[in-house]
Amino acid sequence: MKALFVSDIRENQAVDSVFLVTSKNPGVTKGGNSYLILRLLDRSGEIEGRVWERAEELGRAFEKNDFVRVRGQATLYQGKIQIRVQDIHRIDEKDISTEDFLPKSRFDPEAMAEELMTILRRMKNPHLGALAEAFFADEAFMDLFKRAPAGKSVHHPYLGGLLEHTLSLLKLILKVVENYEGMDVDLLLMGGFLHDIGKVYEFSFDRAVEYTDQGQLLGHLVMEIEIVSEKIKSIPDFPEELAMLVKHMLVSHHGALEFGSPKLPQTLEAVILHYLDDLDGKIQSIQSLMEKESGSRWTPFHRAYGRGFFRGRWERETDD
Amino acid sequence: MKALFVSDIRENQAVDSVFLVTSKNPGVTKGGNSYLILRLLDRSGEIEGRVWERAEELGRAFEKNDFVRVRGQATLYQGKIQIRVQDIHRIDEKDISTEDFLPKSRFDPEAMAEELMTILRRMKNPHLGALAEAFFADEAFMDLFKRAPAGKSVHHPYLGGLLEHTLSLLKLILKVVENYEGMDVDLLLMGGFLHDIGKVYEFSFDRAVEYTDQGQLLGHLVMEIEIVSEKIKSIPDFPEELAMLVKHMLVSHHGALEFGSPKLPQTLEAVILHYLDDLDGKIQSIQSLMEKESGSRWTPFHRAYGRGFFRGRWERETDD
Amino acid sequence: MKALFVSDIRENQAVDSVFLVTSKNPGVTKGGNSYLILRLLDRSGEIEGRVWERAEELGRAFEKNDFVRVRGQATLYQGKIQIRVQDIHRIDEKDISTEDFLPKSRFDPEAMAEELMTILRRMKNPHLGALAEAFFADEAFMDLFKRAPAGKSVHHPYLGGLLEHTLSLLKLILKVVENYEGMDVDLLLMGGFLHDIGKVYEFSFDRAVEYTDQGQLLGHLVMEIEIVSEKIKSIPDFPEELAMLVKHMLVSHHGALEFGSPKLPQTLEAVILHYLDDLDGKIQSIQSLMEKESGSRWTPFHRAYGRGFFRGRWERETDD
Amino acid sequence: MKALFVSDIRENQAVDSVFLVTSKNPGVTKGGNSYLILRLLDRSGEIEGRVWERAEELGRAFEKNDFVRVRGQATLYQGKIQIRVQDIHRIDEKDISTEDFLPKSRFDPEAMAEELMTILRRMKNPHLGALAEAFFADEAFMDLFKRAPAGKSVHHPYLGGLLEHTLSLLKLILKVVENYEGMDVDLLLMGGFLHDIGKVYEFSFDRAVEYTDQGQLLGHLVMEIEIVSEKIKSIPDFPEELAMLVKHMLVSHHGALEFGSPKLPQTLEAVILHYLDDLDGKIQSIQSLMEKESGSRWTPFHRAYGRGFFRGRWERETDD
Amino acid sequence: MKALFVSDIRENQAVDSVFLVTSKNPGVTKGGNSYLILRLLDRSGEIEGRVWERAEELGRAFEKNDFVRVRGQATLYQGKIQIRVQDIHRIDEKDISTEDFLPKSRFDPEAMAEELMTILRRMKNPHLGALAEAFFADEAFMDLFKRAPAGKSVHHPYLGGLLEHTLSLLKLILKVVENYEGMDVDLLLMGGFLHDIGKVYEFSFDRAVEYTDQGQLLGHLVMEIEIVSEKIKSIPDFPEELAMLVKHMLVSHHGALEFGSPKLPQTLEAVILHYLDDLDGKIQSIQSLMEKESGSRWTPFHRAYGRGFFRGRWERETDD
Amino acid sequence: MKALFVSDIRENQAVDSVFLVTSKNPGVTKGGNSYLILRLLDRSGEIEGRVWERAEELGRAFEKNDFVRVRGQATLYQGKIQIRVQDIHRIDEKDISTEDFLPKSRFDPEAMAEELMTILRRMKNPHLGALAEAFFADEAFMDLFKRAPAGKSVHHPYLGGLLEHTLSLLKLILKVVENYEGMDVDLLLMGGFLHDIGKVYEFSFDRAVEYTDQGQLLGHLVMEIEIVSEKIKSIPDFPEELAMLVKHMLVSHHGALEFGSPKLPQTLEAVILHYLDDLDGKIQSIQSLMEKESGSRWTPFHRAYGRGFFRGRWERETDD
Repeated sequence: MKALFVSDIRENQAVDSVFLVTSKNPGVTKGGNSYLILRLLDRSGEIEGRVWERAEELGRAFEKNDFVRVRGQATLYQGKIQIRVQDIHRIDEKDISTEDFLPKSRFDPEAMAEELMTILRRMKNPHLGALAEAFFADEAFMDLFKRAPAGKSVHHPYLGGLLEHTLSLLKLILKVVENYEGMDVDLLLMGGFLHDIGKVYEFSFDRAVEYTDQGQLLGHLVMEIEIVSEKIKSIPDFPEELAMLVKHMLVSHHGALEFGSPKLPQTLEAVILHYLDDLDGKIQSIQSLMEKESGSRWTPFHRAYGRGFFRGRWERETDD
Repeated sequence: MKALFVSDIRENQAVDSVFLVTSKNPGVTKGGNSYLILRLLDRSGEIEGRVWERAEELGRAFEKNDFVRVRGQATLYQGKIQIRVQDIHRIDEKDISTEDFLPKSRFDPEAMAEELMTILRRMKNPHLGALAEAFFADEAFMDLFKRAPAGKSVHHPYLGGLLEHTLSLLKLILKVVENYEGMDVDLLLMGGFLHDIGKVYEFSFDRAVEYTDQGQLLGHLVMEIEIVSEKIKSIPDFPEELAMLVKHMLVSHHGALEFGSPKLPQTLEAVILHYLDDLDGKIQSIQSLMEKESGSRWTPFHRAYGRGFFRGRWERETDD
Repeated sequence: MKALFVSDIRENQAVDSVFLVTSKNPGVTKGGNSYLILRLLDRSGEIEGRVWERAEELGRAFEKNDFVRVRGQATLYQGKIQIRVQDIHRIDEKDISTEDFLPKSRFDPEAMAEELMTILRRMKNPHLGALAEAFFADEAFMDLFKRAPAGKSVHHPYLGGLLEHTLSLLKLILKVVENYEGMDVDLLLMGGFLHDIGKVYEFSFDRAVEYTDQGQLLGHLVMEIEIVSEKIKSIPDFPEELAMLVKHMLVSHHGALEFGSPKLPQTLEAVILHYLDDLDGKIQSIQSLMEKESGSRWTPFHRAYGRGFFRGRWERETDD
Repeated sequence: MKALFVSDIRENQAVDSVFLVTSKNPGVTKGGNSYLILRLLDRSGEIEGRVWERAEELGRAFEKNDFVRVRGQATLYQGKIQIRVQDIHRIDEKDISTEDFLPKSRFDPEAMAEELMTILRRMKNPHLGALAEAFFADEAFMDLFKRAPAGKSVHHPYLGGLLEHTLSLLKLILKVVENYEGMDVDLLLMGGFLHDIGKVYEFSFDRAVEYTDQGQLLGHLVMEIEIVSEKIKSIPDFPEELAMLVKHMLVSHHGALEFGSPKLPQTLEAVILHYLDDLDGKIQSIQSLMEKESGSRWTPFHRAYGRGFFRGRWERETDD
Repeated sequence: MKALFVSDIRENQAVDSVFLVTSKNPGVTKGGNSYLILRLLDRSGEIEGRVWERAEELGRAFEKNDFVRVRGQATLYQGKIQIRVQDIHRIDEKDISTEDFLPKSRFDPEAMAEELMTILRRMKNPHLGALAEAFFADEAFMDLFKRAPAGKSVHHPYLGGLLEHTLSLLKLILKVVENYEGMDVDLLLMGGFLHDIGKVYEFSFDRAVEYTDQGQLLGHLVMEIEIVSEKIKSIPDFPEELAMLVKHMLVSHHGALEFGSPKLPQTLEAVILHYLDDLDGKIQSIQSLMEKESGSRWTPFHRAYGRGFFRGRWERETDD
Repeated sequence: MKALFVSDIRENQAVDSVFLVTSKNPGVTKGGNSYLILRLLDRSGEIEGRVWERAEELGRAFEKNDFVRVRGQATLYQGKIQIRVQDIHRIDEKDISTEDFLPKSRFDPEAMAEELMTILRRMKNPHLGALAEAFFADEAFMDLFKRAPAGKSVHHPYLGGLLEHTLSLLKLILKVVENYEGMDVDLLLMGGFLHDIGKVYEFSFDRAVEYTDQGQLLGHLVMEIEIVSEKIKSIPDFPEELAMLVKHMLVSHHGALEFGSPKLPQTLEAVILHYLDDLDGKIQSIQSLMEKESGSRWTPFHRAYGRGFFRGRWERETDD
């Protein structure tokens, strides 16, 4: 693990750590000297770096998107901390640990995968059981599924976030169905498992979470239809009607056409999946907003949600 | 209980039962004879009645909105069943049983109220506990709360529906909070209990569920703010901040301005309450749609939801 | 072909023709006699039929959804023509001609298919050429593709309508690309060919055009992604990027999320395909509205389009 | 009153005046010296200040949100004026005049309150008269009502703005009702008086206009329902129907659900109140936009209104 | 004037009056006899008529859209009154009085025109004065302007309604401007006068109010731009800027793009005109809804307004 | 033509060229010296300039909106190139070439006008032919029509862009009508020619493309109705119905009320014109976005279109 993360750098601190270079621009001082303006990133955030001396020489030794080892001094400039870089050079990718550069779930992916498989193996529907096993047996898929984020920024936007969200959703489904009669629990669980799996290809997440071209042009919803369609074909005698019901849950899980679902939820299970998926994402997202310090009882205004959130709560009086 | 309900009347059957007259219009046959066209209602539905003989004489003995005892014969007319009325006369309101005329919850209101009180009495927050007790002690309120419907048609539209929905929501809350950390469960339960109580005055439900004038002009959301505000004032030392948090849940529980909430949910608990309230209503509403026979795997198109629902499900093969 | 179509029946005319029974309801006259109320359909429209005599006897000989031979007399009732049925009996399905009951394109499907294949075989892109041939070689698909309608009511809602619309679109594409530089014509043509092929499974069209269950739950857009995805897999060395570009055109061809496209058109070709598809459908739809006689210079108000259309046009003066 | 306001500071001017510190951030020059970056505010605007010398010493003597006396020199930096601070120290709040820091109405609050009371005392409805008097007699309320702004930025966003807007609305109502018959003028006047009174708690306005927590979570519309509801309870024999009509005007005065009214205006008076309230706010807001100099015949683009406004007008020719 | 209006016809009354035939359809009784179903209209409403005897003979003597003299008897049929026609024959158009067939303003058009001219002649702006006079001098225009309705159904939908609305708006403007400073009153008055004049050609109103073809295809807003543009050209030295300001008021008076204004109001006067025009129309429209008897304290639900209106008001107690 | 354009200036290059001054602000260095901050524009873009020496003296010799000759040196500052100005003085407007400051169509306006006239002169409708000739004969109009841009930024935003777009649209119309029967081609061509001519007055385009006051207050759609209306009046015996059809195409060509068309397209030709106009604009606009280098396969996100566009395409393999 890295010695020092961006979020821990304080004024006047000596810095010696590894970063990803996300931008690199040349500058010239009024005195005519060249310098370099850098953006340096790790999983905890981004910081500006300036190379004031030997800029041309040092600058030849790395490019944008390289990992670099940086030595220097943290200083305040216009109220923001930046690093005055004294030395900088390229680090080979195999010598860095990806997790230093991408935030990850606080839960262990293997343990989460285990729990998810346990839940799904309890399904009574043999066809859905076979479909689940077909995914579990697909190592390439499972490897991506354990690492993928659930998004770039909206909710669970970190390595392992997709699995964390999927597992939380399955557990939520198991709770909620206890309150109602007449639901096809296995269908709900299967929908919960598969509803976002297209995200393993919608995003690339080697150095930073980015949309892939096909993620942008097709979207996870369409991509997972292709994946599930193919897997179902590989299972003998999978009932056509059941396949249709599973796919309908994927197709409709965003709940509204304007959110990118080409069909509205039209089965009871599809309606419930949409609500619980949305709720689980919102809870994670709002709790994460609330955890960020802002010096106020209110989180900053959240553009997509059209509001800020109030952190204030009633606490039992101390002498109570 | 009535001898015969509208939904059980079949072609050619002799009818002798009590109904509510919801409209009464005179007609004249081509031959110049007067007759009466009636709409007759009980909790199972509405049926047309025609008085072809002695129409003037019989018509003088009752008015619209009266309960009447009707004797006659069921006949088919243009594919619909109607009653040829042979005798009809007014019945005093005290001699009829309201429940014959308004559908009611299949659950016992006293048992539901008991369960709801048990749940709320387990809250740890003493102020919220006191607020709940203040409502339990208000007999006029509790009496209405046990009888009120949750709506005219959307969800739980029957006597006891408000209590049934409220109790189901509290139980759902208790399930869902097990899946997450850091929630103010008592606040959620209190919001769940109070979120629709204004409906006890929004509707009148003596003979049929109708909006009251103030229900139409103010709405249950505003009316329950007044009720809760007054109850809180009656409790010594109720913390102002806690009162604000409770009221915010009521004010925002419709989740969007265009659904009549003047404020968006801005606390985690208010967000969750909105989702679970909406989900519980939708489940009841969709299940009730699906239970109605329509001779198709699809329910009829539901105007407000913008879709029909698919009843088809995968059933385990018999020889399995 | 049928002797007499619904749209040709006039008052007082003797009727002897074959119809599809779309509803069958019993009635009882005031005098206590049974009769039958029928809806009778062929490709030109629907008409009411009444069986006043021998209703019970005749009624035993056919059911709803049967084809029947009807003899009777056309009469006016409340301003509408209906048939007083004198005789009616079931006809075996093999003895009727489907085309009497479903409207069909005025163009020959084989000739249209030939023209479409000729256009697509001129593409220069070998991979797209191979993909087209894979569809042409799929007889089950081609058979459905030649017969399917393009919709239930919006545009080209008749047998062969899908092929007619697809061919017209391909020819329009070929015209439009002459006006601009730098387009990938083959990609546009491939998108044009495949953009609606899911409709072959979205609708059933044996006796009337109806949505299938999967048509309603998945939609043609998602279904054609599955079809194209599978066909592409069957072609060796089909470039992944090209597959993505083709699928993007299908996914985005409705042009907006609220019209059921989960992604907006994000390539120049996808944008153009959306416009030309929409335009071709609108032209057919408006021209067909205008062809219906309405006794006015205006077509009736069209709900989905939110307007009526003006038929009036300037005609060269005769003495000019 | 302050000696010098932000809006009057010119390049090179010597500055000696009192300001509110709205932000205070440290900086370090390339030479390694500490300095301070300040935002200084009074009712006329905000200006940047820089403390280049003795920054650590001077910085210990005040904090963000303090009032300070500043001595220095105005200079231009990147086209904007800032103050080079030579001396700065904290001023006790009791020694400053609030009105130097918050803009206020150009009308005298006492005179406006007098005029408002005179208008309302002419009402003929004795119950509404009693309700008005109950508010006039509530000194804590009247004190806030005279000082509160009508908003943070939209219209009348200054001390006394709420009273100014309310009075202007009452006078407008009196004019408009002369043009129509059959209106309940007293009800309209009462609605006009009370429609925004919740704003006295929706905003705090000691140093700057800010939303309070309850303002954000409940909103003025809901808060004024509580206030009016309580006041009405204090008046003997206030007719229930009249109370409902008054409250309906408050509940619906934003005119549309998406503007935060949980009910649409459903009485003639509620419809008119909505129009006139909106119109009075718009006139003040647009006139105030037009008064700001912008060096153009157009005001800057107004985001919320989605347009700029044209100041140009036809003026009588000089030789006319 | 007619002897008897539709709205005054009661059960069993003998009828002898003149009507407009708006539809005429043949029917055949079960017994095989021809009869006629008619819709008969005058300014007070529409009523059904049935010709049971001599239908063929009488039917030859008139067509749809003819005025007819009808003799017969009013009877009740399925709760609605209809006329059993005994005799009916065509009346020449010159023998009927248009005002019997189109509702008209309760105010005298000449007196209203006089008042409107008086108001406009007090304007101080000589160019606007000249423009007003140009319209007053245009007899063909003034004749239409005095007779035109302001709409088909929304507000002031009767002969003289356009003038009644325009005059009411001018008087409202004169009231409102007293409450504010700095307005160009003459510009506002001119905008008020001209804002709807295109309606004289948007509707035809000889027998019933109907959209003309150009009314449907161009709309009153565009048509009045053409009219005003031409009139302004006829006035020497009319300032171009003033012409632009006048036209802007017409172009923007619907207040929003989705209501058919191609530009938003961007001057203070255009904003005010939009509000007052809308308000005056709404008041007339709501008062007219409220005047219609409905046997309830609520008007029927108004589709375009999305609500019903509450008629209930607080009335001074009798012993007061 | 200018010696050097903004887009060609590279780091360290000596600059001697002519620019338009779009802003001029004074600054003071920490050392107390005055300097000037300039924005310098030509048709290829905008660049910052700084006058560090003799700022007061040089600054007296020019103002904002002047054309100036600048001599200096290009340097990098914070990653952006700026000019250190050594000498600068005002240039008379007659000595500069407008085309150096406004981008222009890559096609010759005279040749485009010739082609457009040739197309329109082939129309068979004599009245439309006469209308076209009336415009061709109006030299002031034709001069503006050849130079006007089609917009400020959306599509064809350069000198000659209006003519380029109009001509492209006419040619597209001629292609598209070949694919359909029964269209009034001449009407479509006339609509294509006139649909945007109001833009010649909606924009000023002497030094930069700006909205005129009347462009902002009335819009090109309304202005072209006035222009066409007047031209039609000048042609003897122009049929009124034909005039209405032409004007309807202009009024409705934006296709939707919310895009500023006061009426929806209600003729087949108006519908088609709307589609093809929109399509031609989009193609030019997207192709121009794609031509801008961005170092990615994606164009930058386009705010108005709500998306970025993908440049990637499948290219034939080299060894194929």
